[in-house]
Amino acid sequence: MITCDKERLNYKIQEFSKYGSSENGGITRLSLSVEDLEARDAFCRKCLSMGMEIRTDDLANIYATMPGSEDLPAIMIGSHLDSVIKGGNYDGVLGVLAALEAVETIYKEKIKHRHPITIVVWTNEEGVRFEPAMMASGVICEKFNLSTMLAVKDCDGITFEEALDRSGYRGKIENRLNAVTGQAALVELHIEQGPVLEKEKKEIGIVEGVVGMLNYEFSFIGQADHAGATPMNQRKDALAAAVEVIHYLKFQLSKLDENLVYTIGRFLVSPNVHTVIPDQVHFTLDARHRDAKVLAKAVNIINRTPEKINKCKVYIRELWSRKTVEFNKELVNYVERSARDFGYSTLRMFSGPGHDAQYISEILPTAMIFVPSKNGLSHCENEFTALDNCWMGANVLLQTVLKIDSKLV
Amino acid sequence: MITCDKERLNYKIQEFSKYGSSENGGITRLSLSVEDLEARDAFCRKCLSMGMEIRTDDLANIYATMPGSEDLPAIMIGSHLDSVIKGGNYDGVLGVLAALEAVETIYKEKIKHRHPITIVVWTNEEGVRFEPAMMASGVICEKFNLSTMLAVKDCDGITFEEALDRSGYRGKIENRLNAVTGQAALVELHIEQGPVLEKEKKEIGIVEGVVGMLNYEFSFIGQADHAGATPMNQRKDALAAAVEVIHYLKFQLSKLDENLVYTIGRFLVSPNVHTVIPDQVHFTLDARHRDAKVLAKAVNIINRTPEKINKCKVYIRELWSRKTVEFNKELVNYVERSARDFGYSTLRMFSGPGHDAQYISEILPTAMIFVPSKNGLSHCENEFTALDNCWMGANVLLQTVLKIDSKLV
Repeated sequence: MITCDKERLNYKIQEFSKYGSSENGGITRLSLSVEDLEARDAFCRKCLSMGMEIRTDDLANIYATMPGSEDLPAIMIGSHLDSVIKGGNYDGVLGVLAALEAVETIYKEKIKHRHPITIVVWTNEEGVRFEPAMMASGVICEKFNLSTMLAVKDCDGITFEEALDRSGYRGKIENRLNAVTGQAALVELHIEQGPVLEKEKKEIGIVEGVVGMLNYEFSFIGQADHAGATPMNQRKDALAAAVEVIHYLKFQLSKLDENLVYTIGRFLVSPNVHTVIPDQVHFTLDARHRDAKVLAKAVNIINRTPEKINKCKVYIRELWSRKTVEFNKELVNYVERSARDFGYSTLRMFSGPGHDAQYISEILPTAMIFVPSKNGLSHCENEFTALDNCWMGANVLLQTVLKIDSKLV
Repeated sequence: MITCDKERLNYKIQEFSKYGSSENGGITRLSLSVEDLEARDAFCRKCLSMGMEIRTDDLANIYATMPGSEDLPAIMIGSHLDSVIKGGNYDGVLGVLAALEAVETIYKEKIKHRHPITIVVWTNEEGVRFEPAMMASGVICEKFNLSTMLAVKDCDGITFEEALDRSGYRGKIENRLNAVTGQAALVELHIEQGPVLEKEKKEIGIVEGVVGMLNYEFSFIGQADHAGATPMNQRKDALAAAVEVIHYLKFQLSKLDENLVYTIGRFLVSPNVHTVIPDQVHFTLDARHRDAKVLAKAVNIINRTPEKINKCKVYIRELWSRKTVEFNKELVNYVERSARDFGYSTLRMFSGPGHDAQYISEILPTAMIFVPSKNGLSHCENEFTALDNCWMGANVLLQTVLKIDSKLV
């Protein structure tokens, strides 16, 4: 069975880790930054050298297409090149490089295929420079309003639209992914960003979908007073109130289901001075589970939070939520069979993190392939996936494309 | 009995509330800022108009002296003119203005006094622009090293020494408070900064001393992971660990003594992103009590914190501590008797907040007078003390000075 070239893939990974490389072996490659444009340029050069045709749409998504032998919609593979601040060399970029390697194998080995094969590079998946995440795929799938997104500013006051215009990668709206005429399927390879595959000693994650999630902000309004002069029973301590609510949430949520994950990631205190009783605390609660019923129970617990604790007012608001997304069962089976063709160990699983594929799955048959993350680490400089695992993932991607090509009408 | 002029005092309070006035009726008058220098200039003009002699020392502390009829050490009164960011019109400045009003009453009413009377304005009591608080009195009393303090920088990179030189208020080191030859006693009037006097319906706080305190930093080191991809049982969540320790501390400390106050005022989370499990949390614990034995028990509780919680490492370090300071019993009695001479209701109490007087009390007989703070508020723009209370405080200050003058050798 045909496989990708491991050393060639390694060379790609090494090369792309230079674009925006940070001090400690990671990268900072914010969307449409100089570093991102360097990576995009390098990507395009590689595609052009294989005779691929490159188009970009109005959101600077790149579509590089290798024609097939028949006039059919394209099979799409790819991911994103942007990273978080001090991110790693695998999140997103590995999906692009595995796609490049799969196409290069087809090109070099002259493997016949009926469908065109398109490598896609999504703009601004991370949402770090321009919030929210998965912005471009979200606009295409009508999750976000285009005008609103174009007006989003980065921390220097540059709008997304200005960054698009300056990038040289802004094309026509007609070039967007079009499920009716242009594309037939999407397969995205990505690192797991969690520890499950490693812990279960599995080589390939067969991603059946993306779990539903909710995100709430809890706010506590008390009274700032002098830490030395205010007796305990006369305080309105917002931090003490927040800690009580966290205990309540933890106690209740931990009883729901062992697969429910929940995180208090952002926690802001005002005035945040060691000698002043905090008057305000705001924290976020992120909770994720595949089963909508479990999430509904979590919402119920959140809504039962008392309106007043320790003389502090408690305000709760939903920041956002998403329903569980199920990928195309046929494509998921192709991924699984492709992995098994190579004898790789597999695990069917849901993704906790969000991916562009979750939006695209609403308009196009979609599947994802996960490869293991060492120690489950991601969004940090020591994010790592062994070359062997990257290569196995690329092989599964290649095989999945060929399976789709032979089976799809 | 002679009293101060209520309207004249009101005029002083109104005038000084202009120097650094903020939008919402408070002030921002950081030490040695343009606004602080305006207030210092106004203070000096008032003193000069009463024929007082003004000296400043190497730390820009101002000593304005009205001579007495005999060659005796001076009775010192006063406080500070600097404020926190968005502070109020009473913390510190009221002690200076009450002293000015007391001296003006003596001057206008031609009240005979044997001792010189010196109004002192301490530099940088708040420690907001240049850390730590009570810097100048602390240097004089050898709590802080002079060279170290001179090198402290504000957030614009200006050193304390540069600010002193630019202020025009830097004088000779020989002009410092000198307990051997120059001064006999210090009485500082200050707002309570807490709710006790108001709650107990007392007009004058007889401050017997300043409670001892300790301040510890707790650090939690876990592992940053993706909030969606990491199962609950594989997390090293620094925030979850911190919340557990706060619960432990609260449970244990609340059993010690009802007068123990403790505050978690500063709470920093890294990376503080809603979708990332926190890898680091650092918080401060401030605890205060008059009785050293109670504080020793608190330290014992702090030291019994587990070294590892929820797979996170816990580090604890003392940031600083101070022992309980007891003021001069004779002077404290003078304050109490002076208040009772006017028929004011009084409460003997300890100060929770620190004051310059607590350092000076080590080298000079010292006492303090508290006036009520509305709703116990301080270090905020709606800090307020009713004019009647300010005036009563000034009367007690005046009477205390006269008592000391007549009784002290």
